[in-house]
Amino acid sequence: MKPSNKKSWRYKIHEIIYEADTPMGKLFDIILLILILLSVIIVMLESVRSIDLEYHKLFYVIEWIITIFFTIEYIARIITVKKPKNYIFSFYGIIDLLSTIPLYLSFILVGSNYLLTVRAMRLLRVFRILKIARYIGEGNKLKKALLESRAKIFIFIFAVLIVAIIAGTLMYLIEGEESGFKSIPVSVYWCIVTLTTVGFGDIAPVTPAGQFLATIIMILGYGVIAVPTGIISAQYVRKERDDFVHVNTQSCRNCGASKHRDDAKFCHKCGYELHSETNPIA
Amino acid sequence: MKPSNKKSWRYKIHEIIYEADTPMGKLFDIILLILILLSVIIVMLESVRSIDLEYHKLFYVIEWIITIFFTIEYIARIITVKKPKNYIFSFYGIIDLLSTIPLYLSFILVGSNYLLTVRAMRLLRVFRILKIARYIGEGNKLKKALLESRAKIFIFIFAVLIVAIIAGTLMYLIEGEESGFKSIPVSVYWCIVTLTTVGFGDIAPVTPAGQFLATIIMILGYGVIAVPTGIISAQYVRKERDDFVHVNTQSCRNCGASKHRDDAKFCHKCGYELHSETNPIA
Amino acid sequence: MKPSNKKSWRYKIHEIIYEADTPMGKLFDIILLILILLSVIIVMLESVRSIDLEYHKLFYVIEWIITIFFTIEYIARIITVKKPKNYIFSFYGIIDLLSTIPLYLSFILVGSNYLLTVRAMRLLRVFRILKIARYIGEGNKLKKALLESRAKIFIFIFAVLIVAIIAGTLMYLIEGEESGFKSIPVSVYWCIVTLTTVGFGDIAPVTPAGQFLATIIMILGYGVIAVPTGIISAQYVRKERDDFVHVNTQSCRNCGASKHRDDAKFCHKCGYELHSETNPIA
Amino acid sequence: MKPSNKKSWRYKIHEIIYEADTPMGKLFDIILLILILLSVIIVMLESVRSIDLEYHKLFYVIEWIITIFFTIEYIARIITVKKPKNYIFSFYGIIDLLSTIPLYLSFILVGSNYLLTVRAMRLLRVFRILKIARYIGEGNKLKKALLESRAKIFIFIFAVLIVAIIAGTLMYLIEGEESGFKSIPVSVYWCIVTLTTVGFGDIAPVTPAGQFLATIIMILGYGVIAVPTGIISAQYVRKERDDFVHVNTQSCRNCGASKHRDDAKFCHKCGYELHSETNPIA
Repeated sequence: MKPSNKKSWRYKIHEIIYEADTPMGKLFDIILLILILLSVIIVMLESVRSIDLEYHKLFYVIEWIITIFFTIEYIARIITVKKPKNYIFSFYGIIDLLSTIPLYLSFILVGSNYLLTVRAMRLLRVFRILKIARYIGEGNKLKKALLESRAKIFIFIFAVLIVAIIAGTLMYLIEGEESGFKSIPVSVYWCIVTLTTVGFGDIAPVTPAGQFLATIIMILGYGVIAVPTGIISAQYVRKERDDFVHVNTQSCRNCGASKHRDDAKFCHKCGYELHSETNPIA
Repeated sequence: MKPSNKKSWRYKIHEIIYEADTPMGKLFDIILLILILLSVIIVMLESVRSIDLEYHKLFYVIEWIITIFFTIEYIARIITVKKPKNYIFSFYGIIDLLSTIPLYLSFILVGSNYLLTVRAMRLLRVFRILKIARYIGEGNKLKKALLESRAKIFIFIFAVLIVAIIAGTLMYLIEGEESGFKSIPVSVYWCIVTLTTVGFGDIAPVTPAGQFLATIIMILGYGVIAVPTGIISAQYVRKERDDFVHVNTQSCRNCGASKHRDDAKFCHKCGYELHSETNPIA
Repeated sequence: MKPSNKKSWRYKIHEIIYEADTPMGKLFDIILLILILLSVIIVMLESVRSIDLEYHKLFYVIEWIITIFFTIEYIARIITVKKPKNYIFSFYGIIDLLSTIPLYLSFILVGSNYLLTVRAMRLLRVFRILKIARYIGEGNKLKKALLESRAKIFIFIFAVLIVAIIAGTLMYLIEGEESGFKSIPVSVYWCIVTLTTVGFGDIAPVTPAGQFLATIIMILGYGVIAVPTGIISAQYVRKERDDFVHVNTQSCRNCGASKHRDDAKFCHKCGYELHSETNPIA
Repeated sequence: MKPSNKKSWRYKIHEIIYEADTPMGKLFDIILLILILLSVIIVMLESVRSIDLEYHKLFYVIEWIITIFFTIEYIARIITVKKPKNYIFSFYGIIDLLSTIPLYLSFILVGSNYLLTVRAMRLLRVFRILKIARYIGEGNKLKKALLESRAKIFIFIFAVLIVAIIAGTLMYLIEGEESGFKSIPVSVYWCIVTLTTVGFGDIAPVTPAGQFLATIIMILGYGVIAVPTGIISAQYVRKERDDFVHVNTQSCRNCGASKHRDDAKFCHKCGYELHSETNPIA
């Protein structure tokens, strides 16, 4: 076997696994998606006792087939890529590894096969595979908006936690263990349940003083829910304005008009050429 | 009977059924609305055992009268319209059909008469009938805003589902069946109940580890609720600004650049004079 | 007694009751506020059995004193105002009447004295009385924003109701009476509880199909909560921009600069006088 | 000991306690943060009976060590600062005092040691200590946005309370004590639980009329949640726009008009030339 031949073989596999432009690559990606979905559904159904009792063997066989397929795929990805380390430690590389390990682990640790649902994260590939560039664009925007708001969100969560710790302690002192506020950690948990307006109701204040404090916490939570929303809204509004406006502070040398589009080369008012500092004629 | 006469007869019916400009057309539409409302209320009351026991016969008769009326109306709509296919496969055409079928179906399938509540959707006609042009405008804006945000909303729901599947599996492993987390699908259901801040409380974590994970899920959900809100807010704000900021749809004759400022006289890209149609020199 | 004298007597009372500029007027208003608050608190405490048993007589006496005071005040307001009809049928006139009637009614109808809590609405006077012009301004803005959004909000509530009726019927068919979905009206009630993310949990789906449908309803509700928020946000943003920007589309005749403040008389760029059409010199 | 020497000794301590620029100061701050966290965790764990039974003595000792450390720190802060009164009555001064008192108080009042969780507020120092200027900036923005919206938020809470009192009374009259609506205060509490979409479900309407009123309250609450969000969103958007739109704080020397465009050379009101300080002619 000639080295050039071998290279082309690896190259072919690479094209099938990593790209979705060729018919083979597309087919591979669609099979992959179906297997991921199938695998996630099987792991979920396996946990339903009545269904598992009937189909346990079938599930077991399918799971092993899929896991072996994923294992081969994982190894193939490492072999065919130029810089294996980059892949192994990338987000998708780690997810791919975590998608195969749990079943092997289940020999040692009972129940670890349920962790196979981590495969759900592989579904994120759907965006890359189906080439929905537009959706990826939206996803990136979302990610960027969240990243830019992270300082605000961090402050916000920090403040929520401090409020929850103090209010939780007060609720513990007021309500006591009879009402379900068994300890301060449980009270803090209850406070977060209330502040986030989830309100399970498994624990609820029964004394008038406790209900009064709960009222204050709820109105606080109600007002406070506005904060992250306002942050993200403003972020989005700004982002859209950024895309839309593209104006700069430059003034036309001839007529003095300002607020030109960022990419403007000529004044929109008099047609005079802008960028005069790089233009010796003007 | 002359054909022209027959045509005018069909035309008259068409005017009454499809339009609301004539007194007869208005009367027809108001009767229709009252019958729709009456029918929905009766179907709802029929399901209340104590009321049904007393008035079963009355309800039965009224329901049949309304259904026959609707059937005749449906046939009349098909006959009098120019292109029946367009009507039959339109949104309202399908709703109109679904509004008559269930009662006939109830001879074969017990309980299918409850599906008559689909008639509630016929109430959407209220907007068209009462000529509340302004409200329809708002409805269209809403629809447009939702349509334009659909990529963002799709990404968002996708992300929520993946988080719910992974967090649900973890909750199942941590809490186990004693706490009500009977299977992974149930746990995923609980996760969505929590992420959306609904929080029924029929299932709630009882172990410290479970409550800790629940806290993280809730704060995540709390932060995440901001995302769709921010998206729609920005969409609305932009829509209103679009009306406000003075950009026009004109293209430059020379280079084809668009989105000029409303008061622009020269292209911002090539300096070519705009408004050439009113300017014979250019 | 001279008529001029009598007029001045009525005028004095008017000044005390309706205005808060004189020391007497201020004192009257503060006493009024305290009595309103006291009365609301007493009615609330009266409903707590343990407290009522002990202080019933005291509460009874205070309530009658306050009611007689309010009755006298109501009559005085009618007598001293110029156009009594305007007052009687105004918002505050109706509230004032409703604040006195229930106790008299309690001779005939048991329990109607609890309706005295309608007096809480009299507390809205606090804004007028304490002359917090700024707060009233905010209140008016809020009212205006809500009024301008009323078409959108109406559409929105209408859509929510139609979704709730259809989804409620489906839940009734899927879950049945054993799970608490006793009738379609109850199911619709549950749907609204879920769509609004309140989630009491007194009724909750137990079948897999019901939980699946509930998941869809919740995600729908989650996405939908964004809509009214987005509407109000955009409304507020626009309102603030309206206050803030005040720019017009006028261009300076001399230098062509645009986006002048609405009240600008001179160009901000060259100092040339604007409004040339009303200025024959320019 | 020379006074200059003593001064330098006090100065050194001041530098260590109040600043974080020197290695010693940094070390001190990090130890402080760890002790605060440790103390809060211990107080929380102490309330969990099973853990407390095992480690009670250990917790007791650690708590006393930390409290003595905090007491010494508090005294050192007072001694070394120039104006002790300013520190003592500042926000952090009061928090620092409240962080030490509860344990001493526990000799007299059983359970007051739980109030040590107020130490959680000392964690706010983390922002100052770790010099996360950016995060502080965000925090200040948040505080400013909240302060500027306080009139709106006050109006909003006031309106929510009046609605809750009136709706609560109606629910009490409709549902009665059998459904858990034991008294008007409890009903008002339930109303706030519902309006804020928390929905514990410990109390829930069971009569059709009660469920109907609850539906109205929920839709109201659903629409109303949009209001604080809209307020904060608009506040944030405006704040960002303030940075963006080029208005300055300059006043016209001639007529006093302000809020000129950043690039304005002449007053938009009177045409008087601006920037007179750099312009000797004007």
